[in-house]
Formats: sequence, C-alpha cells, structure tokens
Amino acid sequence: MRVTAMAREIAEQPEAVRLTLAAHLSRAGEIAALAGRRRVLFISRGSSDNAANYGRYLLEAYAARGAALAAPSIYTAYRSRLDLSDTLVVSVSQSGATEEIVTAQDWARECGAATLAVTNDARSPLAAGADLALVTEAGPELAVPATKSYLTQVAAMAVIGYAVSPTRGIRQAAWRWEIESAPFEIGQLTEDRTGIDDAVEMLAGSDAVLASARGLMLGTALEAALKLEETCLRPVRGLSYADLRHGPVAVVGPGVTVILLAAKDGPLADAMADQAADLRERGAQVIGIGGNDHFAAAVTLSLAGPRLGERTAPLGTIVPAQLIVESLARFLGLDPDAPRGLRKVTQTELVH
Amino acid sequence: MRVTAMAREIAEQPEAVRLTLAAHLSRAGEIAALAGRRRVLFISRGSSDNAANYGRYLLEAYAARGAALAAPSIYTAYRSRLDLSDTLVVSVSQSGATEEIVTAQDWARECGAATLAVTNDARSPLAAGADLALVTEAGPELAVPATKSYLTQVAAMAVIGYAVSPTRGIRQAAWRWEIESAPFEIGQLTEDRTGIDDAVEMLAGSDAVLASARGLMLGTALEAALKLEETCLRPVRGLSYADLRHGPVAVVGPGVTVILLAAKDGPLADAMADQAADLRERGAQVIGIGGNDHFAAAVTLSLAGPRLGERTAPLGTIVPAQLIVESLARFLGLDPDAPRGLRKVTQTELVH
Repeated sequence: MRVTAMAREIAEQPEAVRLTLAAHLSRAGEIAALAGRRRVLFISRGSSDNAANYGRYLLEAYAARGAALAAPSIYTAYRSRLDLSDTLVVSVSQSGATEEIVTAQDWARECGAATLAVTNDARSPLAAGADLALVTEAGPELAVPATKSYLTQVAAMAVIGYAVSPTRGIRQAAWRWEIESAPFEIGQLTEDRTGIDDAVEMLAGSDAVLASARGLMLGTALEAALKLEETCLRPVRGLSYADLRHGPVAVVGPGVTVILLAAKDGPLADAMADQAADLRERGAQVIGIGGNDHFAAAVTLSLAGPRLGERTAPLGTIVPAQLIVESLARFLGLDPDAPRGLRKVTQTELVH
Repeated sequence: MRVTAMAREIAEQPEAVRLTLAAHLSRAGEIAALAGRRRVLFISRGSSDNAANYGRYLLEAYAARGAALAAPSIYTAYRSRLDLSDTLVVSVSQSGATEEIVTAQDWARECGAATLAVTNDARSPLAAGADLALVTEAGPELAVPATKSYLTQVAAMAVIGYAVSPTRGIRQAAWRWEIESAPFEIGQLTEDRTGIDDAVEMLAGSDAVLASARGLMLGTALEAALKLEETCLRPVRGLSYADLRHGPVAVVGPGVTVILLAAKDGPLADAMADQAADLRERGAQVIGIGGNDHFAAAVTLSLAGPRLGERTAPLGTIVPAQLIVESLARFLGLDPDAPRGLRKVTQTELVH
C-alpha cells in the first residue's frame, strides 16, 4: 500500500509542533509587548480560521482578553475606516500569500492596528507586512488537506494565549509545561489506531455526518468537518453544540453519525457527556474523541484524546480525526492528497 | 387548503415591521447616546443570531463601528472577567427568556458593558435587565419557525445601524427614507409568488442544498438555510461564499442546488454574479434571490428581491426564501408550523 503524503504529514506533526513551540515560546515577552492592546482580532479563512477559532476562545476564556474573528470583507470589499488603535490583529495563513488576508492585514494596519502574522513562510508578503511574524515550522506540505500546517498554527495560538495571559508564577510555569508536553501527546495519538477502522466503517455507512463541540474545542470540530468534507467528498457540517440545538438538530436521527470532540476537563466536560446521550436518544450514532469518563461511556464509539487540559487539548484532539479522514478517503477509493476541485492556496476574489 | 400559521405570519410581516420601525426610528438619539462605546458585541442564538449577523456587518460596513458576535459560553460557562467598559452589548432573543442569553447579558453588564436588548416581549427578563430595550412589534408567533419575529429583529438592527452611524444631513435623511420604505417592499414580496413553485420543485429534486451570500446578505443566507433545514427536515448548510470556496466547494456538482442571496448594489454585487456562474460551471443549479441584472442573468432561476440598497436589503430578501420554505414543507407532506424535535424557545444547558 502506497503511503499517502497526508499520512506522512500527519506523522510529522509531533516534530513540526515541537520545532514551532521551540521557536516561539521563548518569545512570549515580545508577543506580550506587541499585544498591549485591549483586544485581539483574527483574520483568516479555511483551516487557518479553525486554528484562529481556538485562539479566540483561548484568549477570552483563559487569558481575560477580548477577542473576535474578523469578517475579511469589511477590510477588502467595504474598506471600512474602523478605529483599530486598541486592537492587535493576528493574521493566519499557511502560505502567507492569500491576497485577501494580506490585503486585510494592510488595511487593518492603516486603521491603527498592531499586526502579528502566523504563517508557514518567513518570506511571504504576510510576514513582511506584519509588526511581528510567528513562522510555523511545518515545512513543505504536499497533500492539499492541511494537517501539520494546521496543527502548527494551533501551536502558535497556544503560544499567543500563554504570552498574553496575566497568569504568573507557578501557574504560568505549569501552563508552559503543559504546552511543551503536547508534542509527546501528539506522537502517542499519531501511532494509536485503536478504533480508527471502526469509525471509518461507521462513517462510510452513514446517510449524514455532523461534527460538533463547544467552547475551546469548537475549532477542532470545524476542522474535522472541513477535512472530512474536502477529502471524502461528502457534505459534513461542523457547528457548535449550542447552534446544533437551534434548528439543525431537527435532522438528527437514525442514519446520522455525529462526531463529538471534547476536552477531558473544563466547565463544559460534563455537558458534553449529556449531549452525547441526547444525540443517541434521537437515534444518531456518536463517535466521541477525547472527553472525560462520562463522555467516553455515553458515546457509541470512543477514541482517546490527549492527556492535556482543555486550554491545550486542541493540540492533540484533531489527530484521531485526521487519521479517520485519511483512512476513510482511501476506503472510499479517493486520493486523500488531491481532492476534487481544490487547490493548495485558495484565493477569494478581491473586489477592486 | 388550510392556511398555515407560518403563511399567515409571513403575510403579517409588512405591518409588524412598520410598527417596529415606527416605535424605534424616533429613538435614534437615545440609542446613539447609549452606544457611545467603542464597539458593539451581539449576544444571540439561532434566528436571532442571523439577525445579529446583519447588525454586525451593518455597523462595521456602514456605521464605522467595530462589531462582533459574542460566544455566549465565554460568559455562561467560562465566566471570563473581560473588561467590557468600552463595549455596548446588544442581546437579541424573541422570547427574551432564553436563560443563556439573559445570563450572558447579566454577566456582560457586570463586566462593565452598556446593554441594549432586542426582544419581542416587553415584560421579559432580558428587557428588564437591559439599560434600554427595543421591543419588536411582531405580536404572538404561533409557528415554530420564526418569520415575523426574525424580520422585526432585522428591522431593529437597521434602526441601530442608522442610529449609531456618523452619517448626517441629507444622506441621513435618505437612509431613513429607505428604511421607512421597507414595509412596502416587504408587502410586494409577500404577494409575489413568481418562481416560488419552480424553486420548490428544484429543491425537492436536489440531492443536497446550500445557501450562500457575502457581506451584509450573509445573515439572510444563514436564516434561509436554518429555516429550510428545521422546516423541511433536510440538511441545508448556510455559509459565506468565501468559506464555501475554502473546502466545501469540493462537494458542489450535479444534483446540488445552491440558493444565492444578493443585494442589487454594494461592493459585492458583481462578485456575486461571477460566483453564480462559477457554481453553474461546476454543475450545480443556482436559485438567485435579489442581486443586480448580471446576477439575475447568471443564475438558473431568478427571484426578485426588494428595491432597497444593500444596507437595507436584508429587510426584504428573506421573504422569497420564507415563501419557498413554507411551500416546500407542504410539498413534502410536512407541517411547516411544527417541525420535528424543535420547540419555540430553545434552552442551551447552562453550566452551573
């Protein structure tokens, strides 16, 4: 069996994340100095937007800093003259060459924002145009579906949250140890195929698939959905559990598989277990990744997540989902490395 | 044929919106005084979140005020102590009784925010807990799918955008005239069934349905998707055209129908026409609502939108989509008034 580029790049993640953390954790002071603004605005699209989603929740939930995801069209199409003098803009783009993101960053800077770029290319226009660039150490990524470039962006978000947080002393040190243990956890997960084939079989036989989570894990659910959809060519929705209950739950019943992603702790851990039980009562099958013991007992099929606290868990929880996606694509006779209709760098048409 | 409550409530919208505008347009000064904060944060779920999505774009694109959609769990689950002293929080809830939204508003006020509630019940906890309440004049809504309660929330957003904008003089007066002409436009659209049956037939024969838009029309696309899904019990995704291109477009091809919603002007009008053509090249059918002449010529089936500029167009563009949803549900033998598994007021479990 040919080893796909996607499988190889999933396996390269522990080292890519380790290098990214090694390059930037020591720059926490520099990042904090730049982030001496009242709030943070993330500019991103696609997988990068899912990494930014984690950054946004991490800053608001664990670093007491207001944060939001920007609508890039406000900068690129409407050219709004917003006052961003109280804002740090974090632009996230693997290539650093997506015209929409580069243009939005330039516009935000003209509006007074401090700018921080997270990109995999140190020589990209995005890095060149930012006050500070955190270059991810993913190396070249050959498969179209982002894996290691996504996870190194997630690592950069963890660094930004850690750097910006007012946490000090032993709690700060404990946070850093946890982040530094992530590469080991990622390594364990990339080698653990327990339950992957069962999950593939369950998904292949489903009429419809959803991916859902809450809070800090939401970005991971959105990323799992995006990867399943673009690689396996079936519509998969990613949405917050709260949004799922406001309408879309009407379509949940027999034939539907829901992938739920959860952290092992945090204020939402028990609620996620209840939600797994609710979905099963409606007749759906639930694949659970991570979560606490109640959660693992409530789902139809439980896959282990990382042994990391909620604030760091997104560095590991996507890995079983990536393994599922790569296997499911092959199971369906598709090439995970080159999905139909997609290119590596997506350009949203700019309005000139 | 029994006239459904949903059909009746769609028809009541011109008067409900007229009453809502009459009650609040004259309060622009009062709203502007409360909104003397640097930015605006919307707290909402479900249909109310789709109305808030319009409010967010309207403020940033046409009123030069930074705005974002809040993640309610930050306030209800993580209990983050964010500094919101520079923020106006706008809470949107039809019932004004959704515990999650009421709790989030209370928490935001403790964090220093000024608070504005948009609700259909003047005696609700949400109205009681806010510095100022804009009570929508939808009256009792019997069908579970929100129509007139949603559109009166959209009207309240138009009032907030108008009130907060720095636009003065004749341009301000023109803006007000445009808003005040919306009830007439809504009335025209509720009575125009041209193309509705064709759209129903097209959707009923589709394997998959998406709804998409950009900028100010995005909230309308999300609302069209939510209504189709909860009422017609088929998975329908609503997403921005930019997000669609980042992955989900891989599943667009023959058998897929995309509902595109567009304004007749604004910086994205021509781009939407190009996007309609792109989707058709991929083999999809496109139902277009609104848009300019290029857009109408590019889609498979064109339905008229309101004769309103982009900043006000969301007050009319949802109407043809509502008529499609009500007709499609009946065509499928479903009851549009009482979809499976949904209640009128959705509670997201709070974490205590």
